Amino acid sequence: MNGRSVLDECKIAVVGATGAVGLEVLSILAGRGVPSTHVISLASERSAGTKLAYGRDQVIVKAVSAEAFDGVEYAIFAADGSTSTRWAAVAVQRGVTVIDNSSAFRMADGVPLVVPEINGGVLDGDAGKAQIIANPNCSTILLLLALEPLRAAFGVCEIVVSTYQAVSGAGIAAMDELREQTRDVLAGKAAQPKVFTEPCAFNLFSHDSSVDVETGQNGEETKIIAETRKIWNDAEVRVIPTCVRVPVLRAHTQAVTVRLGRAAIGEEVGDAMSRGVGLRVMDDRQGNRFPTPAKASGADEVLVGRIRAAEPIATGATTDRFCLLLSGDQLRKGAALNAVQIAEYVESRRNAAVAN
Amino acid sequence: MNGRSVLDECKIAVVGATGAVGLEVLSILAGRGVPSTHVISLASERSAGTKLAYGRDQVIVKAVSAEAFDGVEYAIFAADGSTSTRWAAVAVQRGVTVIDNSSAFRMADGVPLVVPEINGGVLDGDAGKAQIIANPNCSTILLLLALEPLRAAFGVCEIVVSTYQAVSGAGIAAMDELREQTRDVLAGKAAQPKVFTEPCAFNLFSHDSSVDVETGQNGEETKIIAETRKIWNDAEVRVIPTCVRVPVLRAHTQAVTVRLGRAAIGEEVGDAMSRGVGLRVMDDRQGNRFPTPAKASGADEVLVGRIRAAEPIATGATTDRFCLLLSGDQLRKGAALNAVQIAEYVESRRNAAVAN
Repeated sequence: MNGRSVLDECKIAVVGATGAVGLEVLSILAGRGVPSTHVISLASERSAGTKLAYGRDQVIVKAVSAEAFDGVEYAIFAADGSTSTRWAAVAVQRGVTVIDNSSAFRMADGVPLVVPEINGGVLDGDAGKAQIIANPNCSTILLLLALEPLRAAFGVCEIVVSTYQAVSGAGIAAMDELREQTRDVLAGKAAQPKVFTEPCAFNLFSHDSSVDVETGQNGEETKIIAETRKIWNDAEVRVIPTCVRVPVLRAHTQAVTVRLGRAAIGEEVGDAMSRGVGLRVMDDRQGNRFPTPAKASGADEVLVGRIRAAEPIATGATTDRFCLLLSGDQLRKGAALNAVQIAEYVESRRNAAVAN
Repeated sequence: MNGRSVLDECKIAVVGATGAVGLEVLSILAGRGVPSTHVISLASERSAGTKLAYGRDQVIVKAVSAEAFDGVEYAIFAADGSTSTRWAAVAVQRGVTVIDNSSAFRMADGVPLVVPEINGGVLDGDAGKAQIIANPNCSTILLLLALEPLRAAFGVCEIVVSTYQAVSGAGIAAMDELREQTRDVLAGKAAQPKVFTEPCAFNLFSHDSSVDVETGQNGEETKIIAETRKIWNDAEVRVIPTCVRVPVLRAHTQAVTVRLGRAAIGEEVGDAMSRGVGLRVMDDRQGNRFPTPAKASGADEVLVGRIRAAEPIATGATTDRFCLLLSGDQLRKGAALNAVQIAEYVESRRNAAVAN
């Protein structure tokens, strides 16, 4: 391989190419030097014929069909769950490795749920096999990537997390709604919610996923809990999330309080975090400069800061509870980038197997 | 008394009348039927002569001076800490009971720090005395008011809280900045932060108070911890706050996870919350309708919802950890309303003492 990505020579389908995540997948593949001729952009019949920017080239959207997957090695599904349910198995039958960004298969037995930096190893045994690999929920990916250095060094037995989620998680229409509604409110008009049931301009609200009437948990919170346990292969970890949508266009923020598996001094935790993969520590206490969604937007790394003992301790004293604040681009590492990285992980294992 | 407020016949000074909290104090006093002739609105020399709306009347701002406090019974200080430091003792010397909204005296020994519904009783012994009474930080007031039913019924030994704070906490200039910067961003221009160091339009950031370089805690977090312990007279309660500013004009939101003093079933907790004073429970799981800052803006009550066991439990099982989401108007109960309620509490005790 001469290119910048192990995927250079692969044929890659992007299903749901016209959506917020799909467009981001195209941007990442183009940025990695995958030639446009290797990319099949698929979407609904309605979008067929649409031209999409692909680096300096263009790709033309085709309607999804069984035949569209012929010769494809990786298909990144960035549409909704019903599209995945309908087409993922069809693609696998044609020898395609599907990386599915929807929640349709995440909790299914036998379907790997993967953040490569954390549990890519679960793919090692079956790397050659055409199968469905699930991409976790955006909030889960950002949270677990930020906590991975702590889990590796100390173990993590409890997470309390409050999210500050951008509207981009609800798609392009939600981003348009935030802009338009904000314009209306600034002009003295009433907010007219369409995508969301609550006004989003200069407002925030409990996450728009449906709420379990028995437990009071919403769908986003249920996903974070179940996916964390699956990715960590740890049925015991306590996860207590509260998910909230904020009037931010892009990039999610999370305020996290963790209980470690063992007590540590502040310096140990800081050192561990600074060695984290895919993270950028931004923790300027003097200058009050910490992660924000504006800084995280478009970045590949998850930004982490406000790293501190949950309750102040003397220098050199230990505690098992720490806090941090993270911001990460929900469309990149939270979705499109992680999906591309899964494909790269699998492809590198396949190449290694061939080389052996 | 024939009026709607025990303050009807009192002469009340409002210091910092032209600020966001000061204007709110005037609105509350006018709404309670206190005649404009009983209200002395004070501000800096620069603002002297300004006419402010007072219900259907107007009041004219005077410059603060020692003489301005003559004949005044209650002075609500709604300016910054330096104004309070300079003038509060002067007013007390002239027989005025000062209710101070700044942080200048909150932690001072002998200065009562009061949310009337929670610890108004600390004022009972000295109700007749001219003294400084401190109004707590807005986030503390909203948090502790929402938790009071749980503290009364079960005790509370730990609070983990993430805040979603409106820019109004930083004053009128911050609200103008959010509106103007948002207009700029929508017009494709770059954000130009002035009041805040980070952009606020479609962005959020760790609270703008200064950060303790040793502990990593910011000033807002330190206040919430110290004030909670003082108001509850409980040096042991663990308080773990993360304070964040969000692009909301008015009303703060908080995601709270508490550990109770004893385990309870969900129904007990729900029942306790529904009996809370100054609260409105808004907890429609089916309809996904919960507290939002838009709903809380202008309301006297703190809105509370998303009340649930921190980890799902079987019906009838108990746990000691619960979550909730609250929104409260930081300018009303978080500041101006609480200050007026303190004056009302003191005046009612004075009247009771006279009646006896």
